[in-house]
Amino acid sequence: MGGSWKDFLQEEGLTKHLEARRQRPAMTVPCLFSWHPVWRLGVFMRWWVNGHKRTLVGMTGPPTLLVMKVKKCSRACSFVRDFCMTPTGAQEVMLTCDRYPVRRLPFAEVSEEDLAFFERILPGRVSTDPHELGLVNVDWLKMVRGCSKVLLKPKTTEEVSQILRYCNKKNLAVNPQGGNTGMVGGSVPVFDEIILSTSLMNQVISFDPVAGILVCQAGCILERLNQYVEDRDFIMPLDLGAKGSCHIGGNVATNAGGLRLLRYGSLRGTVLGLEVVLADGLVLDCLTSLRKDNTGYDLKQLFIGSEGTLGIITAISILCPQKPKAVNLAFLGCPGFAEVLKTFTTCKGMLGEVLSAYEFMDNKCMQLVENHLRLSNPVKENPFYVLIETSGSDAGHDEEKLNNFLEQVMNSGLVTDGTVATDNMKIKMLWALRERITEALSCDGYVYKYDISLPVEKLYDIVLDIRSRLGQSAKNVVGYGHLGDGNLHLNVTANSYSSSLLKAIEPYVYEWTARHHGSISAEHGLGFKKKDFIGYSKPREAILLMQQIKGMLDPKGILNPYKTLPSSSC
Amino acid sequence: MGGSWKDFLQEEGLTKHLEARRQRPAMTVPCLFSWHPVWRLGVFMRWWVNGHKRTLVGMTGPPTLLVMKVKKCSRACSFVRDFCMTPTGAQEVMLTCDRYPVRRLPFAEVSEEDLAFFERILPGRVSTDPHELGLVNVDWLKMVRGCSKVLLKPKTTEEVSQILRYCNKKNLAVNPQGGNTGMVGGSVPVFDEIILSTSLMNQVISFDPVAGILVCQAGCILERLNQYVEDRDFIMPLDLGAKGSCHIGGNVATNAGGLRLLRYGSLRGTVLGLEVVLADGLVLDCLTSLRKDNTGYDLKQLFIGSEGTLGIITAISILCPQKPKAVNLAFLGCPGFAEVLKTFTTCKGMLGEVLSAYEFMDNKCMQLVENHLRLSNPVKENPFYVLIETSGSDAGHDEEKLNNFLEQVMNSGLVTDGTVATDNMKIKMLWALRERITEALSCDGYVYKYDISLPVEKLYDIVLDIRSRLGQSAKNVVGYGHLGDGNLHLNVTANSYSSSLLKAIEPYVYEWTARHHGSISAEHGLGFKKKDFIGYSKPREAILLMQQIKGMLDPKGILNPYKTLPSSSC
Repeated sequence: MGGSWKDFLQEEGLTKHLEARRQRPAMTVPCLFSWHPVWRLGVFMRWWVNGHKRTLVGMTGPPTLLVMKVKKCSRACSFVRDFCMTPTGAQEVMLTCDRYPVRRLPFAEVSEEDLAFFERILPGRVSTDPHELGLVNVDWLKMVRGCSKVLLKPKTTEEVSQILRYCNKKNLAVNPQGGNTGMVGGSVPVFDEIILSTSLMNQVISFDPVAGILVCQAGCILERLNQYVEDRDFIMPLDLGAKGSCHIGGNVATNAGGLRLLRYGSLRGTVLGLEVVLADGLVLDCLTSLRKDNTGYDLKQLFIGSEGTLGIITAISILCPQKPKAVNLAFLGCPGFAEVLKTFTTCKGMLGEVLSAYEFMDNKCMQLVENHLRLSNPVKENPFYVLIETSGSDAGHDEEKLNNFLEQVMNSGLVTDGTVATDNMKIKMLWALRERITEALSCDGYVYKYDISLPVEKLYDIVLDIRSRLGQSAKNVVGYGHLGDGNLHLNVTANSYSSSLLKAIEPYVYEWTARHHGSISAEHGLGFKKKDFIGYSKPREAILLMQQIKGMLDPKGILNPYKTLPSSSC
Repeated sequence: MGGSWKDFLQEEGLTKHLEARRQRPAMTVPCLFSWHPVWRLGVFMRWWVNGHKRTLVGMTGPPTLLVMKVKKCSRACSFVRDFCMTPTGAQEVMLTCDRYPVRRLPFAEVSEEDLAFFERILPGRVSTDPHELGLVNVDWLKMVRGCSKVLLKPKTTEEVSQILRYCNKKNLAVNPQGGNTGMVGGSVPVFDEIILSTSLMNQVISFDPVAGILVCQAGCILERLNQYVEDRDFIMPLDLGAKGSCHIGGNVATNAGGLRLLRYGSLRGTVLGLEVVLADGLVLDCLTSLRKDNTGYDLKQLFIGSEGTLGIITAISILCPQKPKAVNLAFLGCPGFAEVLKTFTTCKGMLGEVLSAYEFMDNKCMQLVENHLRLSNPVKENPFYVLIETSGSDAGHDEEKLNNFLEQVMNSGLVTDGTVATDNMKIKMLWALRERITEALSCDGYVYKYDISLPVEKLYDIVLDIRSRLGQSAKNVVGYGHLGDGNLHLNVTANSYSSSLLKAIEPYVYEWTARHHGSISAEHGLGFKKKDFIGYSKPREAILLMQQIKGMLDPKGILNPYKTLPSSSC
């Protein structure tokens, strides 16, 4: 890492490689740069031609992946070194390319012959339509964009197997895509990888109404599955903001967390079986529907959270909890973070089995939702607020437990004020205070976002530390999140993007997290964006073992390349 | 599989190998045979000397691993072919050796130099005492015995690392051992593997009283850990009959199930982090204490349930649930298995979050505990009985829920009679009816035991099928178990062991289980006893992948050899 692209290319011996290619009539120089969404206009570029620096200002385009086509290039052309786009045009140089060097690996390019093969096995389900490809090449945050030329829509596991067997043989890279709702650029291609979408693999295979076990194809949309099992008096064990479009296969591939984790645990416990197609097309059938199975290594765990880099999940067997009969919500003000923690301990003891969410937010968050979204704070001003949800099988019991708990925390001074909701409208209104913080933040200016796990007692220390470190250079430094899961959303806002502010935050925030044995990606995965930061949360030995596993399962590296594992050049 | 040892040896080219060794003054022919504990006296052996069959009757010894020393053998000696010991002496030929061929792999033997090295790094903690080795060479069921000559008792991870680095270099096989309470012969050596005991690695490292996260060494005894966290108002997420001696490291290495799984899920969800020493001595530190961490592949899952074949677990981070304030028990009679299932569905709906156990037993089980143990049935005779436990945070609420549920199931005819306990003495008395079935079975004669998982609606079909299949040749065919987890204990009793009865049960019971997508080992693992049956529950592709993983992590195969994975010769 570090150093310029020129150094990087020289070290890599690429300058000569480029020299050798200069006689070619066209040359594609892919260059990945920052995904900051506010960089909309303007561009500042420098590159070298035969050692002489050249500068180009004024090029526009989507702030994701740039593929420069230098037609009829008569001279050797090096890579872009520095790059920046800001809302007001070129302002300063971002060393993004230096931080995330990425080169297209020597995969084959899709040929007419390949398209003909795909069309034969997926008649009418191979798309090269630029409009459709435009939609699947970019992630939903509009931060990362690829330039795939083919979208494949298999319906069956056998079709996925045929595709991968072919691609592996032909050395074609494949980008598996579910609902494309990921946060770390894991679900879109980086270069021209073939997009294999699970969108037509959307059938429920079976449901066991006694055990509550659902078996379905990977492309089923989470919300529809939830509706399906709710009609049978169960719920899905996970719930996400993106439930209207995310696929269960993508949820499993990214080990999605979400709102129900505190109560029902992670997918590592609720997923009972998987069917996976490996890189060479081999179908690994571990689609059991058993709560207990101790016959050998639990292979499905390899694929949960591996973000499509080890195999493509084609079907899932998942354990669904019974649908709760009653839901209550309490929104409480706490005088300090110590009280937030003590309230959590008390709450776990007194609400115990009915507790289904324990979220917290600081007063800065409350001010942002009040100022930018005009929501009103239903309780008196406090340094911290907590949102407690109960879900149970008896409304009266749950309410009584909640009331006993509230009496206890109010009397002991852990909570200074609060309000409780049992009707749907008030429940939604209170949830909005927590759920709309992201929206309020984006109204506040440019946002630096971090999604980290920390031991729960350290959860807010990092917010205080960063706030004090940044001082006046930041507009707001706020903390909120799933306290019950030890998951903090740390956000810093400023009037505009500034690389000096970024440098003051990173790698400090990652170093801080690592020092306290936290995780730099609590629930979003590593994908493309965070893969090179893995070393802050995993020791070298673990990363090497991951690379060995990748090498074993996908020796040609065709599955979701450039994701999850750090670049080998780093 | 199949064929005689002679054929096996000839196919393997071993006859020549033995010929070549015939000039040696002493010859060790290790032969593993059946572990049936009632085979105490008598022996029937046949072997070949230069092609001529020889028979020996009358040899005695522990019914586990036999090491025949043929001193000053002047002629080539082949392996034992058939072997049987019964309580009354040789009765018939068991083809155990044909079914489980096992040969000592070419590991080195422990030398004086090796012992000196171990003594240097573990002063006073290297045992070659025959009495102490006698205890650790045999499993607690007294069914499987090894002949290790060295017991190592490290205290630290660094010591484990030094041991494995040395053993890997010297090609010495290692048998990791926790509390040695396993059910499948996974925790004792098969031949002369070095026993590495975690018994002195018994320190609690930390406990987070807010999140309920315990970090400890692998050799901590489960019951002591439970006491430690109970003093802090938490409980361990698992509970086992063997809790007084089993080690938490062994629990994790075998993915132990137990009594709390229905409520708190499996160790795959509750274990947050592991520290593992790999075969080459490398320490893999994944000992995080985070509920959420999505940075790369979840490597710890590889070691959970891998029975010490991929690495030695040295420390564990585990999430502990809050201690419940109230426990209730109901013992109910059901008119049929359909009603047992409907009662379970009703119970999940009405008891929901407080349900902590749902066990069932058939009337045959009840008759056995009544006849052999003189326990009395507290409810009127029924074809089936269920035992329902609630654990919650409010005694009054739990009792009310239980009463409402009981009213519902009694009124609808799902349950015909029942009794409820809230005081400890009656709770223990009712639990005894379920927990002492194993004891009652062993009083009934020779017992053929199967521990299988099935889709819950098929759980009892196999009992009916086997009962009808065996007819009068079996004394009793009974079914009981953790219905809530889909885990059946199928037991067949007979007056004495009979190979024809065994042949009527096996492989039929495994084939039946496989046909219904069940697991032939629900919670006990594969260890030594069941490794060659893995194919009934896992497809070939999965077994090959497991073997690849083993080969990657332990290329010399020194870690717990002859366990979990099928013999390569099979």
